[in-house]
Amino acid sequence: MEIIRQPRALQDGLGKLRMQGRTIGFVPTMGALHEGHLTLLKAAREENDLLVASIFVNPLQFGPEEDFQRYPRDMEGDTEKLRASGVDMLFLPDALSIYPEGFSTSVAVKGLSEKLCGAFRPGHFAGVSTVVTKLLNLAGPTRAYFGQKDYAQCLIIKRLVRDLNMDVEIVMCPTLREADGLAMSSRNRYLSPEERKAAGAIFKCLKGGEEKIKSGASDAGAIKTLMWEVLRSEPLIREVQYASAYDPETLDELTEPKKGGAALLLAVAVRIGDVRLIDNIIVSVS
Amino acid sequence: MEIIRQPRALQDGLGKLRMQGRTIGFVPTMGALHEGHLTLLKAAREENDLLVASIFVNPLQFGPEEDFQRYPRDMEGDTEKLRASGVDMLFLPDALSIYPEGFSTSVAVKGLSEKLCGAFRPGHFAGVSTVVTKLLNLAGPTRAYFGQKDYAQCLIIKRLVRDLNMDVEIVMCPTLREADGLAMSSRNRYLSPEERKAAGAIFKCLKGGEEKIKSGASDAGAIKTLMWEVLRSEPLIREVQYASAYDPETLDELTEPKKGGAALLLAVAVRIGDVRLIDNIIVSVS
Repeated sequence: MEIIRQPRALQDGLGKLRMQGRTIGFVPTMGALHEGHLTLLKAAREENDLLVASIFVNPLQFGPEEDFQRYPRDMEGDTEKLRASGVDMLFLPDALSIYPEGFSTSVAVKGLSEKLCGAFRPGHFAGVSTVVTKLLNLAGPTRAYFGQKDYAQCLIIKRLVRDLNMDVEIVMCPTLREADGLAMSSRNRYLSPEERKAAGAIFKCLKGGEEKIKSGASDAGAIKTLMWEVLRSEPLIREVQYASAYDPETLDELTEPKKGGAALLLAVAVRIGDVRLIDNIIVSVS
Repeated sequence: MEIIRQPRALQDGLGKLRMQGRTIGFVPTMGALHEGHLTLLKAAREENDLLVASIFVNPLQFGPEEDFQRYPRDMEGDTEKLRASGVDMLFLPDALSIYPEGFSTSVAVKGLSEKLCGAFRPGHFAGVSTVVTKLLNLAGPTRAYFGQKDYAQCLIIKRLVRDLNMDVEIVMCPTLREADGLAMSSRNRYLSPEERKAAGAIFKCLKGGEEKIKSGASDAGAIKTLMWEVLRSEPLIREVQYASAYDPETLDELTEPKKGGAALLLAVAVRIGDVRLIDNIIVSVS
């Protein structure tokens, strides 16, 4: 596995390989890799000639009160996992090579970026959009892989790739879960044993919503009420930021019942202690 | 000359040619071509294997009170000129293929976009940045050519290309001028004969500023005063939006004298009748 730190070196190196007709699979990460990342790498490894990963904890997507400084870093463990996953190139830039002096350009997807997490993390999705645009331009991949746990992020990246005519396929991979259903996340390691147990309520709430829909409920308000009840019954969940049914294309909260055959996004964000956790599932209305 | 209307067809066609190692020169225009455009095409023709031009009057960069509807269109004359300039491919998209339903992404360069014309045309440079990002992604050129008359635009495009790690060289070509020094512009054809004569004052004002600097003046205030006097003496100039000396990197207006050897931007925007005209020169302080 080749480790590349300079943006220009990555761009030039991959440009030459692309000119030889090689397909490139790209998995951009913030490190602290878990099983979820490994399934992205596995898919990318299978579907492309070359596998490129990046680790960059992007300061631009963290708010001033958020966990940028204490975001988990585990370079040794990560390098090991990437090597074992068959990564050919690891891009490992420092912040100044990504945001050089005078950096002043931003990419924003209006509308979607203000929904769900965007309503609670102002500037977050603009930070994501900007860094992903840069990383995609640097790696020039055939396909780039993202996890469904960050559903809004996936949707926003798909939109900006379409809107800016970037020549890359965005692949959304299923969320990986622990035995009790908790979505894998780098932030799970912040949780105390009690908090970790409480976090099981998130998936329970999503499954509760799904069962209600599958049993014929079409009233969006009743689904939301149920989801909040499940979360509220867990005392260690100290804030529910959102928990409801949404349109999976617009991210608008649903107020009307959905017609049969339609897909529906159930999505949740909560705080347990200092830790903010999100999750979602897609449910089709039968 | 091949005419291509579909973004995907342009991207795929040029992608294949690039894979064969051909260099691509790209000249994006809004049509109504004049001699200034032809020098861009000439430079691009000489420096690249393939010459690609586009004509797209971009609604996103016009304000609601501006001249989008009446912006000059001359498809027949333009096609003729492009053919004669040795253009291989002309990209001629319609607005809906550039801005499809649900389009919601914007690219913005903060700071520079609020300076000079940006202060008088809110949203203009965001519209330019967004469409140029799209066109560069579609054409994937080795080099793209822009005229110095739109100096701030050139600077903003260079910045966004650097900031977003786009793999293209931005080439700024010198402004072409009429016999009396008026910068060539598609908007010159709006001018009545009297207004056309009055427009000569713009270049006179820039040359006046330059002579003052060359004769040793280092007081930015005195240079500005002189420039305004020249413009004010022309009664058909009904508004001076800006006319002064600026830092050519930051576009900040100069208040302090510049040190010897430094370069200085003299830039002007005026209205003559309904027509907004801009011009600039770079002067080095001896």
